[in-house]
Amino acid sequence: MSPLSQDASSTSPSSVSSDSIKATLLRLVSDYQDMNGTHFQTIEGPPSALEFAKLVHLGRPVLIKGLARSVPAFDKWDAEYLTSALGDQQIGVSVTPDGNADALVEDDDGTTFISEPHSETMSMGDFLEKLKAHSHSEVLYLQSQNGNLRSPDYEETEYAALRDDVPSSFSWASDALGQEPDAVNLWIGGSHSQTSLHKDPYENLYAVLRGSKTFTVLPPTEGVLLGTQLYPHAQYHRSSPTSPLTLVPTFPDSPTTPTVPWTPINPIDETTHTSLYQDFARPITIRVEEGDGLYLPFGWYHFVTQEPGDEGFCSAVNWWYDGDYRGERWSMREMMDRLAREVGWSVRPPGAEEEEDGEESDDDEEDDP
Amino acid sequence: MSPLSQDASSTSPSSVSSDSIKATLLRLVSDYQDMNGTHFQTIEGPPSALEFAKLVHLGRPVLIKGLARSVPAFDKWDAEYLTSALGDQQIGVSVTPDGNADALVEDDDGTTFISEPHSETMSMGDFLEKLKAHSHSEVLYLQSQNGNLRSPDYEETEYAALRDDVPSSFSWASDALGQEPDAVNLWIGGSHSQTSLHKDPYENLYAVLRGSKTFTVLPPTEGVLLGTQLYPHAQYHRSSPTSPLTLVPTFPDSPTTPTVPWTPINPIDETTHTSLYQDFARPITIRVEEGDGLYLPFGWYHFVTQEPGDEGFCSAVNWWYDGDYRGERWSMREMMDRLAREVGWSVRPPGAEEEEDGEESDDDEEDDP
Repeated sequence: MSPLSQDASSTSPSSVSSDSIKATLLRLVSDYQDMNGTHFQTIEGPPSALEFAKLVHLGRPVLIKGLARSVPAFDKWDAEYLTSALGDQQIGVSVTPDGNADALVEDDDGTTFISEPHSETMSMGDFLEKLKAHSHSEVLYLQSQNGNLRSPDYEETEYAALRDDVPSSFSWASDALGQEPDAVNLWIGGSHSQTSLHKDPYENLYAVLRGSKTFTVLPPTEGVLLGTQLYPHAQYHRSSPTSPLTLVPTFPDSPTTPTVPWTPINPIDETTHTSLYQDFARPITIRVEEGDGLYLPFGWYHFVTQEPGDEGFCSAVNWWYDGDYRGERWSMREMMDRLAREVGWSVRPPGAEEEEDGEESDDDEEDDP
Repeated sequence: MSPLSQDASSTSPSSVSSDSIKATLLRLVSDYQDMNGTHFQTIEGPPSALEFAKLVHLGRPVLIKGLARSVPAFDKWDAEYLTSALGDQQIGVSVTPDGNADALVEDDDGTTFISEPHSETMSMGDFLEKLKAHSHSEVLYLQSQNGNLRSPDYEETEYAALRDDVPSSFSWASDALGQEPDAVNLWIGGSHSQTSLHKDPYENLYAVLRGSKTFTVLPPTEGVLLGTQLYPHAQYHRSSPTSPLTLVPTFPDSPTTPTVPWTPINPIDETTHTSLYQDFARPITIRVEEGDGLYLPFGWYHFVTQEPGDEGFCSAVNWWYDGDYRGERWSMREMMDRLAREVGWSVRPPGAEEEEDGEESDDDEEDDP
C-alpha cells in the first residue's frame, strides 16, 4: 500500500473540498488573532538580550522607545552634517513619478507592472534640498537597502563617511540572535515615498532618526489573504537627462508576461481590498516617532509611509539579521503558502515545480524590499 | 461574492485532491527534517537564561549533562533515605499486568482499549523492595504526575517529606519562560515500566536521579504520521485484594465505543509501524544517564523506557512549565492536525465540531500523560 493512501480511518477521501481547506486557512488566521490579539507591544527602552530573545520567540512587532536616540547618528545627522560629511560624493537615489518604488504601477495601456525605480546620482546636499523644496516633479528616495552602511562583505561605499555614526549591531540583538547583522541600511525620503506591502527574510530593527515612519503590518499567517498574483516586470528609465520617466518592460520579447509574485493589496487604499482581506485581515498600525525604533519579526508583511522632520526629510537606519529557517516556523509557513496556492488564493510562479523548488518561489518576493 | 470563493487566480478549484494535501503534509515533515536534522544537541551543564531562551525558541530536545546532579535529591535519595523519610506514609502506585500504564491494551475478546492503571497504596519501603525483587507478577510504577512534589495549588501530599530536596524551579528556566512550573513530579519505576508515545502541553525539564531513561522522541510535525485513532477507555481493577487485575471498560453501557484519540505506534515495536510511519518518521533516541537531564520541548512526542540503577529502581523528577499558545506555533500545529484529519490520516474525536471546539479534541490527548 502506498503511504499516500494509507489511512487511519476507514474513510479515505480521494479529494477534499476546496472550501474545507479555505476554512482551515481562515481558522489559522483567526486562531492566531485570538491567541495573540491585534495589538503591538511597547517597551520603554532597548531590551536586555534575554528580553529580546523572548520577544523574538514570540515573534510580534515591538515599538522600542528611544532605540534611535541610543545611536550616535541621532545627535549628529542634521542636514548640514550629512551634506558636509558627504561633500561632492555622488550617491544613488531612486526616482519614480509618484513615490512607488518596487510597487505595482499601471502603464498607459492599462497593464499593471511590478516596477523598479530609476536610479540617479547626485550629492547629498542636492538630494536633501530637493526633498525639502518639494519642487521636484518626481519623487526621490534614498533606499538602496544593500547594506549601504555595513554588511559582512562591506567594501567602502558612497556612505563611508557616515559609517562610524552607526553601530555595527546592538549587543542585546546579536547575543539573542547569535549573529551579526547581514546588512545595515540608510533610508532617507519625504512624505511622497512609500514602501508597498511585502515581507523580508530578516529579523528587522528599525531606528527613526528624523521625522516619523508609520508601519502597517500583518502577521505571516495573514499572507494567505493577500491574493498574491503574478505581474510582468518593468523599470523606470529616462532616455535623456531632461526626458520624463517612462516605464520600460524588462523583457522586450514578452513585455506583459507575468513572472513576479506580488500582492495587489495596499492597506491604506480600500479600492485595492478584496472581501477576503477586508473580512479577515487585521492590519496593525505602528507609528514610530523620531528617536524611537521598531522590532519587526521575520516574515511579517509591512507597508511603510513617512513624514519628514523639521528639516524636510525622514531618515532612518535599519539592521537586518538573517531569519532562522530552523525550528518549525519556516516549514509551517511553507505549508501554509502551498495550501493557499492549492485553493487558488495565491498563484504559483511559472516554472516553479512544487516538488522540486517550492522555496524559491517565495524567496522571489521575500528578497524584494 | 463569498470570501471563501474569492480567488486570486482564474482557476478556482472546487476540490483539491487528497493526495495533493498528503504530499503537502509529507513536504512539511521533510522540510522540518531538512532544516533541523534528526539529531539532538548536548550541552555540558545547565544553560544560562539567555541560552535556554534560545533553545526554547529553536524547540529541539537538548540533553543537559549534570542537570540532575545540580539537585539536592541527587545526593540524598538512595533507597534507605527514601524509605526512612516517608516511613509508614502510604503512597499511591500504579499497577498494571505488563508495565503499560496509559497505553493501548488488547483484552481477551480482541478489543483494544486505552487503559489506565490500577492504583494501590503501600509504603515507600515496600514499593522499593518490590521493584528490586522483581518477584511481583505485576508491574509497579510511581507516576502520579499530578504535581506530587510541587504545584501552584500545592497542598501537602504523601511526598511532603521529600519536597525540600527538589528545587521549585531552575532560575534560568523560570527567567527564560517567564513563569514558575505548573507541576513538579516524582517518578520511580523499574525496567518493566514504559510510557507509551504521547505529547504534553508543557515545556518539560527531566532530571534522572537513579538509573537511566531512554526517550524516543518525534517532532510535532511528525504527529501527522502517527495514525491517531479512537479507542474505548478502560481501567485495571482488582475485585478483591488477592484477585488478578482485570480490564474494566469505563462506560458499561457502551463498553467498546471508541472515544479517546491515541496513536497505535510504539517506536520500539516494528509490528505497530505503518508504512507511513516507517517511510517518513525519523525518531530520535536520547538516553539520559544518571545525573543528567533532558529538555523536551512543548508538543514533542515521546516514548520512554528506563533501566534501574544500583539499588534496583529508576528515579526521576520533572518540571512542567505551561507551553505558550501565543506566537504562530500552536495555531500552525492546529492547522496541521486538521489537515491530517481531512485526508483521513488521523481521526476526529466524536462530537468535536471542527468549527466550534476543534482545540478540545487535541487537548484530550495532550492532557493525558
